[in-house]
Amino acid sequence: MTMTLYSLCGVDAARPFSPHCWKAVMALHHKGLAFEERPLAFTVIPTVESGASKTVPLLRDGQELISDSFRIALYLEDAYPEAPSLFGGPGGVAAARLVEGYSQHVVHGVITRIALIDIHAMLAPADQAYFRKSREERLGRSFDEMAAGRDAAITALPAALQPLRHMLAFQPFVGGATPLFGDYILFGALQWLRITTGSVHLPPDDPVSRWFDRCLDLYDGVARQVA
Amino acid sequence: MTMTLYSLCGVDAARPFSPHCWKAVMALHHKGLAFEERPLAFTVIPTVESGASKTVPLLRDGQELISDSFRIALYLEDAYPEAPSLFGGPGGVAAARLVEGYSQHVVHGVITRIALIDIHAMLAPADQAYFRKSREERLGRSFDEMAAGRDAAITALPAALQPLRHMLAFQPFVGGATPLFGDYILFGALQWLRITTGSVHLPPDDPVSRWFDRCLDLYDGVARQVA
Repeated sequence: MTMTLYSLCGVDAARPFSPHCWKAVMALHHKGLAFEERPLAFTVIPTVESGASKTVPLLRDGQELISDSFRIALYLEDAYPEAPSLFGGPGGVAAARLVEGYSQHVVHGVITRIALIDIHAMLAPADQAYFRKSREERLGRSFDEMAAGRDAAITALPAALQPLRHMLAFQPFVGGATPLFGDYILFGALQWLRITTGSVHLPPDDPVSRWFDRCLDLYDGVARQVA
Repeated sequence: MTMTLYSLCGVDAARPFSPHCWKAVMALHHKGLAFEERPLAFTVIPTVESGASKTVPLLRDGQELISDSFRIALYLEDAYPEAPSLFGGPGGVAAARLVEGYSQHVVHGVITRIALIDIHAMLAPADQAYFRKSREERLGRSFDEMAAGRDAAITALPAALQPLRHMLAFQPFVGGATPLFGDYILFGALQWLRITTGSVHLPPDDPVSRWFDRCLDLYDGVARQVA
């Protein structure tokens, strides 16, 4: 039976933009698994699967229902061991949690400040109200304050990506010669930025841009088709 | 034959402080290998092993001479495969380069601003002159400017460690249930801070402090003995 991946969208269901959902999409393609993606608006998420999760991604695989992108990757690695590994062994699983920490606590903050107003503009009115309230509570600042920091955040982005650039001096992917889930963690962040703002705000010859392009090329360019 | 690890010290050879050398020390203990550590002053490094390296750590193992902490770890993993793995598989090797990037480009900058004057005070006059000149060139600012930023850097340290703290909510070590080279990369940074300034400048109940204490306990507390 085909799996269902619930993801996140605004008014246009053809432009799912959540960084965490993109991690799950890339992990499913990495494993070569067939799935149907069902993008949902923020306020629709609690109405599917009997309200099983307040957040997406949420994966339905037969009797199994798994939320959280990292837990989905662990589930896929365990349930489909014959497909290409998402982690490259136990050391890779463990280190991916630090990659997640770096992505969420160094990179996401900068991207949020760049993309906030663009994301808001993609949403229907009911979702805009939810988004504004939840983000102002989470970030402790008003939308107007955050919007004023957009240019400074674009300026700060290259430095936030310096750890990734450092790594790319040694190897083409976080996974080494080929991508692993660690790549999809950071890809998800920049794909979120690209879809919501139309750009990754980096020079095309930046090693990070070239790595991002390699990720967009994966799996017949599936991630490039959404823009 | 016992290996020789050339490391870095100031006037007191009993207090080697380099973050990169501590990575190599911990990697050698992890592998259970016997070695003699020979701490060198900055200006002495080019005089050993026929000037083979301008930097330490530098490892002599029989006919082999290896510089750079990451290359030393890769060498040990390859040359001593029967000893406990430093990486936990190929995914762990690859991801460790991103851990290195995070450590050097997010954490080291903050620690440098906290510890700079303390490091300078540990050195003999000839090494002080080398250190001041090389660091002012590398960092593009005068010592006085950097010293003025010390309190701000102490305030910034907890946020720079948030990726590590995120990971510690899921597992006790970067390596998962037990430490791997990724732990020693970040341990080296905080051990450098501890030895040069006398403190890691974090609350004792911070998850990062508790992880650091677990690392100090490893291998009969070898790293705790230097203070």
